[in-house]
Amino acid sequence: MKVGDVGEFGLIARLARLVGGEHPDVVVGIGDDVAVLDVGGPEWLLATVDAQVEGVHFLRQLIAPRQLGRRALAVNVSDIAAAGGRPTFALVSLSLPNDVEVQWAEALYRGLRAEADRAGVAVVGGNVARSPGPVLIDITLLGRVRPEHLLRRTGTRPGDVVLVTGTLGDAAAGLRLLLDPPPALASPQALPPVERDALLKRLLTPTPRLAEGQVVARSGMATAMIDISDGLSSDVGHICAASHVGVRLWAERLPISEGTRHVARLLEVPPWELALAGGEDYELCFTAPREAAEALAARVTAETGTQVTPVGEVLPAGAGRRLVTPDGQEVPLEPRGWQHFAQNP
Amino acid sequence: MKVGDVGEFGLIARLARLVGGEHPDVVVGIGDDVAVLDVGGPEWLLATVDAQVEGVHFLRQLIAPRQLGRRALAVNVSDIAAAGGRPTFALVSLSLPNDVEVQWAEALYRGLRAEADRAGVAVVGGNVARSPGPVLIDITLLGRVRPEHLLRRTGTRPGDVVLVTGTLGDAAAGLRLLLDPPPALASPQALPPVERDALLKRLLTPTPRLAEGQVVARSGMATAMIDISDGLSSDVGHICAASHVGVRLWAERLPISEGTRHVARLLEVPPWELALAGGEDYELCFTAPREAAEALAARVTAETGTQVTPVGEVLPAGAGRRLVTPDGQEVPLEPRGWQHFAQNP
Repeated sequence: MKVGDVGEFGLIARLARLVGGEHPDVVVGIGDDVAVLDVGGPEWLLATVDAQVEGVHFLRQLIAPRQLGRRALAVNVSDIAAAGGRPTFALVSLSLPNDVEVQWAEALYRGLRAEADRAGVAVVGGNVARSPGPVLIDITLLGRVRPEHLLRRTGTRPGDVVLVTGTLGDAAAGLRLLLDPPPALASPQALPPVERDALLKRLLTPTPRLAEGQVVARSGMATAMIDISDGLSSDVGHICAASHVGVRLWAERLPISEGTRHVARLLEVPPWELALAGGEDYELCFTAPREAAEALAARVTAETGTQVTPVGEVLPAGAGRRLVTPDGQEVPLEPRGWQHFAQNP
Repeated sequence: MKVGDVGEFGLIARLARLVGGEHPDVVVGIGDDVAVLDVGGPEWLLATVDAQVEGVHFLRQLIAPRQLGRRALAVNVSDIAAAGGRPTFALVSLSLPNDVEVQWAEALYRGLRAEADRAGVAVVGGNVARSPGPVLIDITLLGRVRPEHLLRRTGTRPGDVVLVTGTLGDAAAGLRLLLDPPPALASPQALPPVERDALLKRLLTPTPRLAEGQVVARSGMATAMIDISDGLSSDVGHICAASHVGVRLWAERLPISEGTRHVARLLEVPPWELALAGGEDYELCFTAPREAAEALAARVTAETGTQVTPVGEVLPAGAGRRLVTPDGQEVPLEPRGWQHFAQNP
């Protein structure tokens, strides 16, 4: 059996079993987006690693190196944000074919530096290796969190409200504009330039919701949190699996930008499909008890300016995962994530 | 200018400049093998990352996946050992082409687990990505060290003695046996099987000198330390550059195993050339004041059973880096490292 035959999540589960186990200083080990480690100080250490592989997560001809550097670090910052932590130190391992221009690598690092400065991160180490294959950027990001502020996929309960920051589907819409667009999207006149630029920016240089995650975590009101990297339908599914609950989302409540609605019209697909299945938005999805949800949403907006929208409710596990479509039908919520940059034409 | 045109170290220096800078919690930042970070506890955090790229650092047909898993972690453990620390947590980022067998990936992880258990490391996180290119294993290893025990490349002074653990050149000799061996080495009868196996083991599953590094660090006698990954001539050069000193090594004093001497005879090269230029031995090279060196060497051997050999002396920077050959000539010590697994036929 080849790794191509088992799913990515299936392979991860098999491998995690082989190295997992109890360890006194490991608060949260392998299997979550972020490891939580007790290193003896008043705060816990957070650690996460993510790879950006050319041809899988990005195409070199479609993203500028400076954008790629920003993006590669941003996706890790998003994981720390979803834990309620603050990122501190990054280690960068870069594998490059010989034909890459030195200028390209330098621009990549300028982008890394820009995102690091924005997020308060120091790049403290790295590795550069020649590779006969694609450009590959592996970033390990460390962070810190006070034990009482840590949020995870686990912890939500039936009756909780599901909330999301910002708007969903923009990165997916941007991807459709960038990658082999159908005729309706290909013309420069299809979309106002400002909308087009905004969608491409969401895809190419996402802004992780760092301040928002910290407000949510410090509030003490939230019960679980995850970042939306695979698509809301997948990521809310991760919360359901880890917390042993079900969920009901309302398609009409999903926050969707004008630009994404515009693209959806041109593609003749319902905009909520882009919002549900589109990954790489790097918004946050979190849950809170019904009586706290409104106050929490208001607090996040007051402190960060970012809108927060209730989009669903947590159900008992037996109720499954459900989606209420705009016509009032209830259908199974399928995890349809945009997982890989190059595989979603 | 392509990255293939600037040296690996040249590229690292260019990129490090772009992301470096002062940060209050960063004790040692980018540019060293190991970052040293203050995370608020009584011990400092150590962090290092290393990549193993198929076709560059290993060939899939020449190393079993279980060996590769051990090796990939061991090379990181060696960096922590050279800082005088103890490794604690690993994050593993694995990029795999679709045609890799699931069994192969599982065996890789069993090897990782074996080395992790040996070194007291918990694998706390990871990432698995599909790649259109070679197998790539990126490991970030965290560790801890008491501030007073930290050893670095800096700190040695003229008059200090240069010491090394174990024997040198074995991995290089093993590589010559494995990779396109000349006729004198190709026959199974060229070398006693026990010698052949020992050399291949040094290459494929190196044993990082973790206990030895800790004895050196805790002694308070050593002034600098590095692990021998590129070859002694390169690695002692790193100490010289960082400490702003020169060095004189004696070829005849280099500790060389019978197996490596045997291979050198068959190859008709002086054995000390394998010992000086051969990387991937993952022994430790450290320095200590003349009056402490003998006692320190004896202590390491008493506590670990590992031999320690004085091989040179630290000189003022102006004296340069020199090698005394067996015929008594003094020649420049050139950094001739075996850098890449596949590029040293």
